[in-house]
Amino acid sequence: MTRVYNFNAGPATMPLSVLEKAQSELLEIAGTGMSVMEMSHRSKEFQAIYDGAESGIRRLMEIPDEYAVLFLQGGASLQFAMIPMNLRRPGKSADYVDTGSWASKAFKEAKTTGSANLAWSGKAENYSRVPKTGELQLLPEAEYVHICTNETIGGIRWAQFPETRTPLVADMSSEILSRTIDVSRFSLIYAGAQKNLGPSGLAIVILRRELADRAPADTPIFLRYSTHIEERSMYNTPNTWGIYIVKLICEALESQGGVRQIQKINEEKAARLYRLIDSSGFWRSPVEKESRSLMNVVWRLPSEILEEQFVAQAKKAGLVGLKGHRSVGGIRASLYNAVSLEAVDALTAFMKEFERTNG
Amino acid sequence: MTRVYNFNAGPATMPLSVLEKAQSELLEIAGTGMSVMEMSHRSKEFQAIYDGAESGIRRLMEIPDEYAVLFLQGGASLQFAMIPMNLRRPGKSADYVDTGSWASKAFKEAKTTGSANLAWSGKAENYSRVPKTGELQLLPEAEYVHICTNETIGGIRWAQFPETRTPLVADMSSEILSRTIDVSRFSLIYAGAQKNLGPSGLAIVILRRELADRAPADTPIFLRYSTHIEERSMYNTPNTWGIYIVKLICEALESQGGVRQIQKINEEKAARLYRLIDSSGFWRSPVEKESRSLMNVVWRLPSEILEEQFVAQAKKAGLVGLKGHRSVGGIRASLYNAVSLEAVDALTAFMKEFERTNG
Repeated sequence: MTRVYNFNAGPATMPLSVLEKAQSELLEIAGTGMSVMEMSHRSKEFQAIYDGAESGIRRLMEIPDEYAVLFLQGGASLQFAMIPMNLRRPGKSADYVDTGSWASKAFKEAKTTGSANLAWSGKAENYSRVPKTGELQLLPEAEYVHICTNETIGGIRWAQFPETRTPLVADMSSEILSRTIDVSRFSLIYAGAQKNLGPSGLAIVILRRELADRAPADTPIFLRYSTHIEERSMYNTPNTWGIYIVKLICEALESQGGVRQIQKINEEKAARLYRLIDSSGFWRSPVEKESRSLMNVVWRLPSEILEEQFVAQAKKAGLVGLKGHRSVGGIRASLYNAVSLEAVDALTAFMKEFERTNG
Repeated sequence: MTRVYNFNAGPATMPLSVLEKAQSELLEIAGTGMSVMEMSHRSKEFQAIYDGAESGIRRLMEIPDEYAVLFLQGGASLQFAMIPMNLRRPGKSADYVDTGSWASKAFKEAKTTGSANLAWSGKAENYSRVPKTGELQLLPEAEYVHICTNETIGGIRWAQFPETRTPLVADMSSEILSRTIDVSRFSLIYAGAQKNLGPSGLAIVILRRELADRAPADTPIFLRYSTHIEERSMYNTPNTWGIYIVKLICEALESQGGVRQIQKINEEKAARLYRLIDSSGFWRSPVEKESRSLMNVVWRLPSEILEEQFVAQAKKAGLVGLKGHRSVGGIRASLYNAVSLEAVDALTAFMKEFERTNG
């Protein structure tokens, strides 16, 4: 077996120890005589797995008790629809901050079912930064303010979160568990699992329980947060395999020292890569320094031809997933929790050699 | 390792060959240097897996080209909401046939967002049979007729499907790929994967493409069939692990001779179990013979105490998942495709011994 250095933007690399554990238990888990995939989601054995995943996330993020933690399906994209359906009462509006591709998709979805206010847009600046709080044109009566804390495609993030008078709702798909955050500043946090949390096909929603009562009576039962809070994510059969992997990933992260410790490693990984990018005119970051993402580092080379060669040669050298998103081009290295310092060092060594040959 | 005989209702037992294949590829698949869970859903390697799953289902079910096959999330329960949102135009109604727990849940969801007609209910008869076509009180102007072809909890199924003038929509979660069906008689077929198809967290939707144009403009983008048809289930990141397992299960089924062959085995499995139940007054089937499910066989013992003992002793003997659903009690053996004749013979042998001791 030859495992590559995997810089995919998501689905993304996972800790080898997690994959090995899942492999060893694939035919039979915990003396049950069956795979976790073959187990009733209502069995006490699976309930223990579910509890492990939920309590792992609660501990790692220090989530206060007044928040529910839900394991839903449909990724962040279903949340784009569920958030306005549940939190924006009839006739009211909500603020959306457009920092890039994902925030923009959330805004578009909110507009299909009602009123939504574009509180700021970075489009004219090619999504090269997040706004300062003073730049936001927020509605005093908005039901909530929606932000995407880290844009996977543009490679920008909110280093500090905005101060808002109305509830703050955040898509943290591509940075959840990568940095310490104060959950109490948010009313709702959601994340597709496929970057830092687990496999695709699962979304985590962390919300103040009281918010779930806002949904109008004609909201489909399945699309109400209250349904899933009442049934503890078991209104229907959840993604049991995904929840199992989340539990293993939480355990691996706790054994590494938790979010505080992984944040230090993540900062160091990003610093080493940005330092190299800034060290020479051969590489160019399109992102303002204060807004640079620690999870998705994007950069350009002197030409698109060189970018293609870079991606192709890197792949041959065992460094994969470095092509920028098709909508923006360039290079992107995603440095999620499971990407090691060693992988970043292998990448920067390759870059130095590439620059020496092509610079 | 000791694998048990697993009669779970879903998530349910899977072919051992599929689990072994998934295990062997868990750390690295097809020379990519990564797990299928770590792979971009837009990579050519994953696209090949997706194509394999879709073409497998198309071949096994002989699906005509005018139907789209979608791999969605949210299980059958999200379909309960999406079907009326997409197929029932404003001001119109739809027919629902209430054959039990699942059909009833679909009906309840349809009523939250508009008008739905109860065309028949088996509730007064304890859901012991499906109706005859002549009993259905169908609306001439209904947008569609919804049925659940097999009720997992009640243990009944439609041996023949009803003739309807309006489009027929069917929840086949607990019997898809277990029997040959003429897809062209249906406008939309859907199924949660966790019985015959794959792991939980995935739903298959098979629909006439033309139906996708009906959705009103204020339908959330994510909840429109047209969105997922246009993007071939890649509007957002799909459940890649689930799709991979579906592909393996389709391959295993094709190597067994396809649906025609597995149907024969399924008929034989159910026949052996029903024969024993009918052979003695010790066991009692609550279901009318013509409506008996081949996938979920339910029966009673002379007392609830004996039923508890039966379930407990069976578990000790390596026969698990036999407890009836908590809402109805009794015994249930789910005999999905991956349950072998050998497992059924082990169950009937155990039953004979149990009757000898307790009868």
